[in-house]
Amino acid sequence: MMPVRAAVAGANGYAGMTLVNLLALHPGVELCQLTSRSFAGQPYRAAFPLLELEGRFLDEVDPEGVEVVFGCLPHGAGAGRAADWLRAGCRIIDLSADFRLRDPSLYPRWYGQEHAHPDLLAEAAFGLPELHAAEIAEARLVAVPGCYSTAAVLALAPAAAAGLIGSDVIVDAKSGISGAGRSPGLGTHFSELTESVTAYAIGGHRHLPEIRQELARLAGASPRITFVPHLVPMVRGILCTCYFDLVGSLDQLRAAYQDFYADQPFTRVVERTPPTKLATHGNRCLVAVDAQDGRAVVTAALDNLVKGAAGQGVECFNLAFGFDRTEALRSPDWWP
Amino acid sequence: MMPVRAAVAGANGYAGMTLVNLLALHPGVELCQLTSRSFAGQPYRAAFPLLELEGRFLDEVDPEGVEVVFGCLPHGAGAGRAADWLRAGCRIIDLSADFRLRDPSLYPRWYGQEHAHPDLLAEAAFGLPELHAAEIAEARLVAVPGCYSTAAVLALAPAAAAGLIGSDVIVDAKSGISGAGRSPGLGTHFSELTESVTAYAIGGHRHLPEIRQELARLAGASPRITFVPHLVPMVRGILCTCYFDLVGSLDQLRAAYQDFYADQPFTRVVERTPPTKLATHGNRCLVAVDAQDGRAVVTAALDNLVKGAAGQGVECFNLAFGFDRTEALRSPDWWP
Amino acid sequence: MMPVRAAVAGANGYAGMTLVNLLALHPGVELCQLTSRSFAGQPYRAAFPLLELEGRFLDEVDPEGVEVVFGCLPHGAGAGRAADWLRAGCRIIDLSADFRLRDPSLYPRWYGQEHAHPDLLAEAAFGLPELHAAEIAEARLVAVPGCYSTAAVLALAPAAAAGLIGSDVIVDAKSGISGAGRSPGLGTHFSELTESVTAYAIGGHRHLPEIRQELARLAGASPRITFVPHLVPMVRGILCTCYFDLVGSLDQLRAAYQDFYADQPFTRVVERTPPTKLATHGNRCLVAVDAQDGRAVVTAALDNLVKGAAGQGVECFNLAFGFDRTEALRSPDWWP
Amino acid sequence: MMPVRAAVAGANGYAGMTLVNLLALHPGVELCQLTSRSFAGQPYRAAFPLLELEGRFLDEVDPEGVEVVFGCLPHGAGAGRAADWLRAGCRIIDLSADFRLRDPSLYPRWYGQEHAHPDLLAEAAFGLPELHAAEIAEARLVAVPGCYSTAAVLALAPAAAAGLIGSDVIVDAKSGISGAGRSPGLGTHFSELTESVTAYAIGGHRHLPEIRQELARLAGASPRITFVPHLVPMVRGILCTCYFDLVGSLDQLRAAYQDFYADQPFTRVVERTPPTKLATHGNRCLVAVDAQDGRAVVTAALDNLVKGAAGQGVECFNLAFGFDRTEALRSPDWWP
Repeated sequence: MMPVRAAVAGANGYAGMTLVNLLALHPGVELCQLTSRSFAGQPYRAAFPLLELEGRFLDEVDPEGVEVVFGCLPHGAGAGRAADWLRAGCRIIDLSADFRLRDPSLYPRWYGQEHAHPDLLAEAAFGLPELHAAEIAEARLVAVPGCYSTAAVLALAPAAAAGLIGSDVIVDAKSGISGAGRSPGLGTHFSELTESVTAYAIGGHRHLPEIRQELARLAGASPRITFVPHLVPMVRGILCTCYFDLVGSLDQLRAAYQDFYADQPFTRVVERTPPTKLATHGNRCLVAVDAQDGRAVVTAALDNLVKGAAGQGVECFNLAFGFDRTEALRSPDWWP
Repeated sequence: MMPVRAAVAGANGYAGMTLVNLLALHPGVELCQLTSRSFAGQPYRAAFPLLELEGRFLDEVDPEGVEVVFGCLPHGAGAGRAADWLRAGCRIIDLSADFRLRDPSLYPRWYGQEHAHPDLLAEAAFGLPELHAAEIAEARLVAVPGCYSTAAVLALAPAAAAGLIGSDVIVDAKSGISGAGRSPGLGTHFSELTESVTAYAIGGHRHLPEIRQELARLAGASPRITFVPHLVPMVRGILCTCYFDLVGSLDQLRAAYQDFYADQPFTRVVERTPPTKLATHGNRCLVAVDAQDGRAVVTAALDNLVKGAAGQGVECFNLAFGFDRTEALRSPDWWP
Repeated sequence: MMPVRAAVAGANGYAGMTLVNLLALHPGVELCQLTSRSFAGQPYRAAFPLLELEGRFLDEVDPEGVEVVFGCLPHGAGAGRAADWLRAGCRIIDLSADFRLRDPSLYPRWYGQEHAHPDLLAEAAFGLPELHAAEIAEARLVAVPGCYSTAAVLALAPAAAAGLIGSDVIVDAKSGISGAGRSPGLGTHFSELTESVTAYAIGGHRHLPEIRQELARLAGASPRITFVPHLVPMVRGILCTCYFDLVGSLDQLRAAYQDFYADQPFTRVVERTPPTKLATHGNRCLVAVDAQDGRAVVTAALDNLVKGAAGQGVECFNLAFGFDRTEALRSPDWWP
Repeated sequence: MMPVRAAVAGANGYAGMTLVNLLALHPGVELCQLTSRSFAGQPYRAAFPLLELEGRFLDEVDPEGVEVVFGCLPHGAGAGRAADWLRAGCRIIDLSADFRLRDPSLYPRWYGQEHAHPDLLAEAAFGLPELHAAEIAEARLVAVPGCYSTAAVLALAPAAAAGLIGSDVIVDAKSGISGAGRSPGLGTHFSELTESVTAYAIGGHRHLPEIRQELARLAGASPRITFVPHLVPMVRGILCTCYFDLVGSLDQLRAAYQDFYADQPFTRVVERTPPTKLATHGNRCLVAVDAQDGRAVVTAALDNLVKGAAGQGVECFNLAFGFDRTEALRSPDWWP
């Protein structure tokens, strides 16, 4: 079988680099174009010194002969290009926020501008395979969710679907610094961040409407959610700690989670509260279900660059192109 | 004036070491005895190579001639000794949990055994100067609160006192690893903890009853509190993120905090969510008051070994012995 | 083809865990026994919660039916067992120091006791495939070198073999903390090690005689080597910075390295001084050749648990049992 | 006594911030001007939220009424200004590299341009109080040495002065990331640096000529020195590991160091190889003298922002203005 000819747009950010490193070992993929504004014209090895990948970075994807484009461009930069790529016959696995929200009115509010192609929103599949595998398999356009959204939705979906959330929900999220991207700034500066934890975006983070949208689809309506992200001094990993009043018993809640994820290859209910390190360097999401005095405390851990971005993108690609869902995603666990 | 003759019991744990390092620069203190089971008989410089402190570690405090004992013993180990020290005429600044809870019935539940001297609980001052300065000044026995308790109570006290908490409260706390003490184990092992965040003690942490006790004293009754601590890969620092429904406006809430801490030398209301690094290596507690969609989000940052333990112990000592409250606690800010 | 039946002795230290995680994905291996003194009797999932590996830890290997034993026992603990395993017909890939030194007189000096089976030393292959692939393929007993030895020998071998070392050699090595193993102690305690670098074993480290032995085999005689290891606050990774006077030009030196490693799958000469992060989570050794004022400065980076231990063990196993040398060792690069 | 009126030029880099934080507690100093290009016009609290310091950042120092200027400007930016400040009657404690090298011909080679005021080089005192206290006390212009230079010179000075260096010298230095300054870039980016060690500037680092100059002044001629710096994932701290052949015995060497530093308040010979953490957050330099097989291995640890920059600047100021040398530099030791 001929490998699928793939392009990666925005290949030198952390999601793009992770994607390239994963796809380089995918037996069904030929990486035929990588784009990067800052590396345009330079050989691939300038950014990937260990990969045996010949060629030079392009400035833009040339969709001719490309079957799938993985979009890792900044938010807003990809929506216009996506329409062109689709017109040229490509399918798209998009890792930006551009097609995640189905309601066009949310873009001006959360992203400060009208959506460039609101007509495409209806057909975009939300790229969370635990919830939307069938749609992803058929879609021309897959919108891979945000890293926090993936963790929070996977932490809450079974409870929401089973009607076991009896109150508002607090999601207190902790993320490694790679979630802030590769662009330098005081917000990613080693000496400012090491030995420190801080909350940010208390007024409202862009992943919140994604979380609401998905929980509403599961439960009819989303519970009221307060979501506060924190930066912790580590590279990879997200932990979401979710609090809500229990409807029913803790045993019922646990059973709901076990059932919901029984056949999932990557999301697992674990007995002990997971340290994020157990989930990083792989496409896992580990969920633990517990309670304190009648209040459920559900934690979910994943690697923000893998299950929270590039790995989930490969998972969606596998579904969309008929590969085994775990292809190129079975790598060794690393501990410590 | 003659310096106060002080002993430190349990001087080679992290709280004890910090206390010794602070007291060594206190002009009104003579460090006349340090005890340590593991260093007994060895010279002080074996544990404090930089201090010019002559003498050898004792196994136990000899209260003869000692005016104040700083107790840094493991929970349960100090209660019996404390009675002896008091009888010998010493005053006590105790950093363990042995005298923090006024209700004797809480000890079996949270510490697994009856309290050895329940008669002493009534006279113990709760060593949080922002709330109990007058009592601390008079007390023979001061029980310095736990690190999490200090952060959580300082984060919530103004709202509780002003009646501005309109719901249950979630306290999601993040602590550096030094909070787990100096004893080696997988729970303090570098390779297990680095690059990882985890929640623990979801079933209930021992600092929770301290938090409840203090909020109840301020507000008549404590709100229902869910408290989940997390370990983050840094040495020092605690951040408590507290969530509750606002009674009144955010401006009212902010004003309540500004008023409550207006004259406090160490606890400050800051405009921007504090990174813990801004609070560490000093006796500060920094509190930021914010909200998301009508839910208050209050964060408090402090150094668990300083304002959360030894520094607060010195602060209590200063109050108790008539020194300026900031004596030996005005050290340079360090950034980064 | 039937998979090779393998046992791992000492499977819950870091080298053992890494070995199990790698072998679990090796298509030619059946992991039929894991031993661990502390986990004996417990199910494998107690130590490997993510692996689908059924069974319980044994206290000792039962060599019946086992074709290969991977030895990850503490130094000294395996030499006696190895003789038994060989007698029972097993081949051995030993990750301890017990069979690395060919000269029995070195054991009392460096390990404090006579070797239990000096007769086995002559037949043990030194498990550094870049130097001894043919012997490893034939050996019943392979002694995988130490982590520092692997890095230092790979950093110096091409220069030694080509006669380009014109002086004594300084090897200043920097290692992540996982090199100190999983046993808790102040030497692996998070709060003691974070934000700190220190030198240790200045009087002489046990990997030094391994380095001397291998350089002497290449060059007739070993240059005088000073080797000082340092601990740096990271989990994985070793960087060896090697200093010696150049014989000939820097270009000659570079050419010698390029030639020496031209056909090696895992050891690569790179253009820019490698950060250890580029080498970790994989079986790579990256070597950069540079100079300052006529003195060669060669740096080598690897992951101490992979190329410095378990990955190299798998590499030796592949050679010994006729698999492709990279089998189970082609995992995705991870950055950052 | 009237406090000395001081200005800090370049107050929002890490050296400048540390200087401001130290001087804010100096009883003999009035901080009357802070300059910062990026903060010009903003109140001091924008950069120093914890200090009670009223005023706004200036763009440039106005020397009128200023007695001392602490210069923390980038290399090359301060030389011209310094001439003006001196002319206006200020004394200068300069933390840049602009006046450290006495030989004007070294500037084009190491800094890429002619020195703007070579006439000032002869009168500049080299601000290392262990070597030049008397000159510093008299100088109008003090050039505080680089962080690596301070560590390397203090590690080697006693041996050089006593004629105990019997060979070339290797200085392998390890620095925390704050040495790279506060400007964002991939070279200070958290995710790129964490969990990694790397060597840099192998071709030659700018602190090398400072080291040579000072050793030559002590010994008549400098030994040949190879100096390679490394970045390690921590904020603060430098460890220099120095290798040279012993002239005489290790006991003689140790005695030379003990004598040399016998009366020094900040530099101490310690028995055990110092971890950098023992030296950070204070103005210490800790030196350990050891050997391996006849080769001396001397390690020196300090805090690059304190003894390696701002603290040493305050120490020079104290000497120059007649204060106790330790004024504002006696802060508590912090461990861990």
